[in-house]
Amino acid sequence: MARRPTLEFWYEFASTYSYLAAMRVEALAEAAGVDIRWRPFLLGPIFAAQGWTNSPFNIFPIKGRNMWRDLDREAARYGMPPVTRPNPFPQNSLSATRAAIYGAEQDWLVPFTKAVFETEFARGGSIAEPHAVVAILDKLGLDGTAILKAASSESSKGRLKLAGEEARSRGIFGAPSFLTEDGELFWGNDRLEQALDWAAGNRPGGMR
Amino acid sequence: MARRPTLEFWYEFASTYSYLAAMRVEALAEAAGVDIRWRPFLLGPIFAAQGWTNSPFNIFPIKGRNMWRDLDREAARYGMPPVTRPNPFPQNSLSATRAAIYGAEQDWLVPFTKAVFETEFARGGSIAEPHAVVAILDKLGLDGTAILKAASSESSKGRLKLAGEEARSRGIFGAPSFLTEDGELFWGNDRLEQALDWAAGNRPGGMR
Repeated sequence: MARRPTLEFWYEFASTYSYLAAMRVEALAEAAGVDIRWRPFLLGPIFAAQGWTNSPFNIFPIKGRNMWRDLDREAARYGMPPVTRPNPFPQNSLSATRAAIYGAEQDWLVPFTKAVFETEFARGGSIAEPHAVVAILDKLGLDGTAILKAASSESSKGRLKLAGEEARSRGIFGAPSFLTEDGELFWGNDRLEQALDWAAGNRPGGMR
Repeated sequence: MARRPTLEFWYEFASTYSYLAAMRVEALAEAAGVDIRWRPFLLGPIFAAQGWTNSPFNIFPIKGRNMWRDLDREAARYGMPPVTRPNPFPQNSLSATRAAIYGAEQDWLVPFTKAVFETEFARGGSIAEPHAVVAILDKLGLDGTAILKAASSESSKGRLKLAGEEARSRGIFGAPSFLTEDGELFWGNDRLEQALDWAAGNRPGGMR
């Protein structure tokens, strides 16, 4: 049987459109016959390199208003629950990302990722404090305290930093982003379907 | 017979994704039973108010590289000819927009708009100099010189400025943008289908 192609899904826990993509990607990938590699990372250092120290949706309020309305519409279109905004936005995603990086090879990465996003954007809850992340892990039947402690070790912090450097070196400038095995980069929840098509070998108009 | 709903299509001649939308909107609108009101405007003053004096795709080169690649992919997916980049990018769109604003109530607005975009992004030609705009008008069987002269009158300049103020006051911050009769704003070529659905009364999940 032929090996299934893999698509990397790079996501940031503070990112609204990463949330939409995280809730959609499994079913679409299954239909496309593509395996997903979930790649949590921190967008903050990349935004900082662009001169932004806040979400562009806060820096440009007119854009932010449209984003929230668009998120409402898109969530409704996908049949997802109504969006509830966390306060503040964006949430500090450091603890959640540390846990996800630590769990990169664990079978709890995907349920943890989806639980963080749902806490934050379906229920408007905080994911910023370490105890909020511990609670999400505990609820999945894991030892949240032990995981977050291990996720805060120097070696784990090093892996988080490496992921950020890898993201930047591979051209990622926003989230969500999708990277195919041949290095094709797609940006945004709006490109999830196209990224899966590309990964599955269905390229538009004979592109290469 | 019931009146058909109208969707306003706000576009900027220098904008790559406005080009994609302009080439797609007629067939999609016809299928949706929606009339399109074509609204040319200048994005420059709105970007300047956000602190940008150049295209964000030039200010953030990593984003620009992805945009051009994405444009290639999306054009191929839509069955459009390969994109050819004008030099410089963005093109100065003042003369073309003046002509389009002058022709707002004329039956040549749509063919002129599409001819400008095709000159610029399908053939990589300049649209910046007045003589380039005159040539496009002439090729449509019009008197380009007379039109561009009339389009440069004080009253015509005033209408151009008013269009920009209307765009800003209605929440437009980028192009293309779509505005429904009930004031719902959609941003980007990626939202053309959703905007038409909304205009036609098909709203996701019972939204209002």
